Amino acid sequence: MTRRPLPTKDRLIRAAADLFRRSGYHGVGLSELLSAADAPKGSLYHHFPNGKSDLAVAAATWASDEMLRMIAASFEPAEDFGTGTRTLCHKAAKMFDKSGQWDGCPISATLFEGPDNTDFRQHAHHLYEGWIAEVTHHATRLGEPDPRNTADTLFILLQGGWQLARARQNSDELRKLPARLSAPKTD
Amino acid sequence: MTRRPLPTKDRLIRAAADLFRRSGYHGVGLSELLSAADAPKGSLYHHFPNGKSDLAVAAATWASDEMLRMIAASFEPAEDFGTGTRTLCHKAAKMFDKSGQWDGCPISATLFEGPDNTDFRQHAHHLYEGWIAEVTHHATRLGEPDPRNTADTLFILLQGGWQLARARQNSDELRKLPARLSAPKTD
Repeated sequence: MTRRPLPTKDRLIRAAADLFRRSGYHGVGLSELLSAADAPKGSLYHHFPNGKSDLAVAAATWASDEMLRMIAASFEPAEDFGTGTRTLCHKAAKMFDKSGQWDGCPISATLFEGPDNTDFRQHAHHLYEGWIAEVTHHATRLGEPDPRNTADTLFILLQGGWQLARARQNSDELRKLPARLSAPKTD
Repeated sequence: MTRRPLPTKDRLIRAAADLFRRSGYHGVGLSELLSAADAPKGSLYHHFPNGKSDLAVAAATWASDEMLRMIAASFEPAEDFGTGTRTLCHKAAKMFDKSGQWDGCPISATLFEGPDNTDFRQHAHHLYEGWIAEVTHHATRLGEPDPRNTADTLFILLQGGWQLARARQNSDELRKLPARLSAPKTD
């Protein structure tokens, strides 16, 4: 069985998502993007009239959809919220190891750049709230007492835990997150 | 009373810390750095023989020392760990508002860049462990049952909470962190 090659537009989006995640928006040049996507220069402006900034929005959206699917795949088969959380954190740890224990959050590395890009910031906010809404949905369905707040906390733990995993080059920091959510101090 | 101007080296470090925090290592050019520091080009290589990368390490160290002082100032007068945590999170919220609700973590924005810079990564890890060690010291002194683990959790919450505060443009996300540490779910 041979796999059909992706259309140019999709190759550009995936290459951009990978590169921005690793080096940040400003750390990636156009020629590097085109070469990684094996795409001619004209194709970039054909598919993304504003070039790199349009591509960044598309790449962050694509990476965010991947995260939404990971959240759904973790919680849909779960019988309680704790089980779904553990599955999600283990999947995140696998993703972290696969990235060479280095890539950043695909949304913040791509869109949280420069002090003045309101479009980027608003889009990042929109995508993050999408993750939180998906977790809130499952927390509600699985009977959590304060679903929205629990979803916020899980978002915070995943973002902060990813940062500590990068610093320590150790995906176990992600696997340990559920214990920080469900077995906390009680004074 | 007039304030003595800072020496060129310190002006370079502070300007670099501010700019990297806002735009990331790759998002800041040398001419922008020199102009913000009001420093001649020769001075950069005089004080930092490897230029921008040496300056980044010095800037992250300076910003990290500022964070260490903030941790100490929060916990030293505190009579229990919860009070120190609340003070620290309120100070962080003030810092976030002062930054225009946008700046990133001064260490990750400066040093977590590019896939291959081992020196940057190791230095970032070293600085982060310094913060965690300082919190662990106070957690031990104030009788927390699992000081090291509590310090890790507080680090994760501050990193993730800062990210959510950026997305929502709202420093209250930082003020709400102590409740996530000390009044968590109990199922």
